[in-house]
Amino acid sequence: MTSKNDRFLRALRREPVDCTPVWLMRQAGRYLPEYRATRAKAGSFMGLATNPELACEVTLQPLERFDLDAAILFSDILTIPDAMGLGLSFAEGEGPRFARPVRNASDVAKLAVPDMETELRYVMDAVRLIRRELGGRVPLIGFSGSPWTLACYMIEGGGSDNFSRIKAMAFSEPALLHRLLSIVTDAVIAYLSAQRAAGAQALQVFDTWGGVLAPHHYREFSLPYLARIARELARGEGSERTPLIVFGKGNAPYLEELSDCGAEAVGVDWLVSLGEARRRTGGKVALQGNLDPATLYASPESIRAEARRALDSYAEVAGSRFGHVFNLGHGMSPDMDPAHVGVLVDAVHEFSRAAT
Amino acid sequence: MTSKNDRFLRALRREPVDCTPVWLMRQAGRYLPEYRATRAKAGSFMGLATNPELACEVTLQPLERFDLDAAILFSDILTIPDAMGLGLSFAEGEGPRFARPVRNASDVAKLAVPDMETELRYVMDAVRLIRRELGGRVPLIGFSGSPWTLACYMIEGGGSDNFSRIKAMAFSEPALLHRLLSIVTDAVIAYLSAQRAAGAQALQVFDTWGGVLAPHHYREFSLPYLARIARELARGEGSERTPLIVFGKGNAPYLEELSDCGAEAVGVDWLVSLGEARRRTGGKVALQGNLDPATLYASPESIRAEARRALDSYAEVAGSRFGHVFNLGHGMSPDMDPAHVGVLVDAVHEFSRAAT
Repeated sequence: MTSKNDRFLRALRREPVDCTPVWLMRQAGRYLPEYRATRAKAGSFMGLATNPELACEVTLQPLERFDLDAAILFSDILTIPDAMGLGLSFAEGEGPRFARPVRNASDVAKLAVPDMETELRYVMDAVRLIRRELGGRVPLIGFSGSPWTLACYMIEGGGSDNFSRIKAMAFSEPALLHRLLSIVTDAVIAYLSAQRAAGAQALQVFDTWGGVLAPHHYREFSLPYLARIARELARGEGSERTPLIVFGKGNAPYLEELSDCGAEAVGVDWLVSLGEARRRTGGKVALQGNLDPATLYASPESIRAEARRALDSYAEVAGSRFGHVFNLGHGMSPDMDPAHVGVLVDAVHEFSRAAT
Repeated sequence: MTSKNDRFLRALRREPVDCTPVWLMRQAGRYLPEYRATRAKAGSFMGLATNPELACEVTLQPLERFDLDAAILFSDILTIPDAMGLGLSFAEGEGPRFARPVRNASDVAKLAVPDMETELRYVMDAVRLIRRELGGRVPLIGFSGSPWTLACYMIEGGGSDNFSRIKAMAFSEPALLHRLLSIVTDAVIAYLSAQRAAGAQALQVFDTWGGVLAPHHYREFSLPYLARIARELARGEGSERTPLIVFGKGNAPYLEELSDCGAEAVGVDWLVSLGEARRRTGGKVALQGNLDPATLYASPESIRAEARRALDSYAEVAGSRFGHVFNLGHGMSPDMDPAHVGVLVDAVHEFSRAAT
């Protein structure tokens, strides 16, 4: 079953589109009152994420309000380490916490790739249910955290200001960190493959913390694992393969390398202009992004002006609007105004349709 | 009176040195037990910063332990907005807070450049006292926050995850933000000039938050004000002018422009290799940086290897070690081991002396 609206998939394949497709990272989230209502029903964040019916409900909520061109599975990037036995919890108002973080060789030796249709079945069930409920309206995106980003949480035990533990390991015990990253990469590949088998029509890897690394460390501990994921996912797929988007906060210095990593698209944050990103990737990949999320705090007129600026920045270098998926440069925040999201989504369609 | 050890000033002027000078951002701080003792005596952070004798004491503490090539005034970047009447406080374990943040045109209209020798006299007294107590051992660096960075705290009222208020102003009321930045820039220029007059032998501007801006916003709201500071400070100075270092977290995308902003040196974070920074600045400025601060959590052998990597990265492109001041790419953290600082400082001198 193909999607009635296939703009998003066409843009990822750099094919002509009637207008630029748009979706927003964290488009299903706390800024929506209907999300907060479902979340209250679920009792906790993980209660919501592990319940396929409720996960499906919140995935579809933003599509009812806005003319979005893709849905993204509602889940969390930390489901993999949780299924590995690290004991994930979310304290209200704080970030994620692992009860059993990975600190040494013996902890790493205990890690194994979870079974996707048992230990992570709730995710696959959610994918299947969302595909059914979407009824082909728009494509569904599955996702995973990147190996480096998952390793950050697994080793730090939660969020971190300076990533002191994982970086100490990178400097002083690089072989141990590579062992951990290798197992996590196997798990990410299995996880994304299972989501694809369950019905995800595009896949995104979130390398949220790759940008905290010095260049020689990024090239040793993050980039090669992204490339391995792209390579393994492509294995056995034909020309109509399920597109992979590699998003990374702070990945602007590595755009040339990322455009060669084997992914169909690179998602960029707002710290580089789309024109420069397009010039540096040379049309080898589609680009996704990249409005500063804080733009949504601005006035509707400013939001429209910034949408146009981003669209034009890409098109001026690319020579057309094709090969661009509009998005924010990072996820939405809970205090954003839903009405402003509507202004942005409509502006992207309006301006790009006029000019295509 | 010149300094007995003038390696740091010579490196900033890109003159030959016997070895690469090194100092560390936040070298006087909580990682030192003797700092914590003085801090306890002072009662509060601002009690420490506003007492010239105690500020002098903590400024000199790291020089007693380590073979550092510069001292930096112990103070806070928020002294200017505090003197403007915003009411600065530091809650224990939290960041800075302003009781009266700047939110609208009427708040901006009330701002005035403080008088340096009355309202900020405690800073100038500290500079004079530290110069006297240093006795010419090493040069003294004075500093200020950048206009954009100060404006972030003034408008947000403290630290921020997403800078929603100042960015909303940047998008929707740019003229108002420029009025605020202009007043703050006048204050920064007066502040740095007064520190220079009081005895500071080099000056550093910390653009801590410039790197959160999209490129078109960085070029509108941060960079021009840095250039104005450099230009105004140079006015009336001869060829032996007091060197200005412009440091910015996340400033790698703008190195070409920063090398033309009029400052003698550009301080870079760890997200770019020094070799690339040197290539892109073409020797027009000295470079300061840029070890990932988390390197100090690693083993002594790893610290030495990383020090050598940074030194070599610079020298390979520059053709010599001249024009490089070694530093971290950002400030030190309280949980770092003082012994590791000693390892780093000695490694920088040892490796660069051997090769110069």
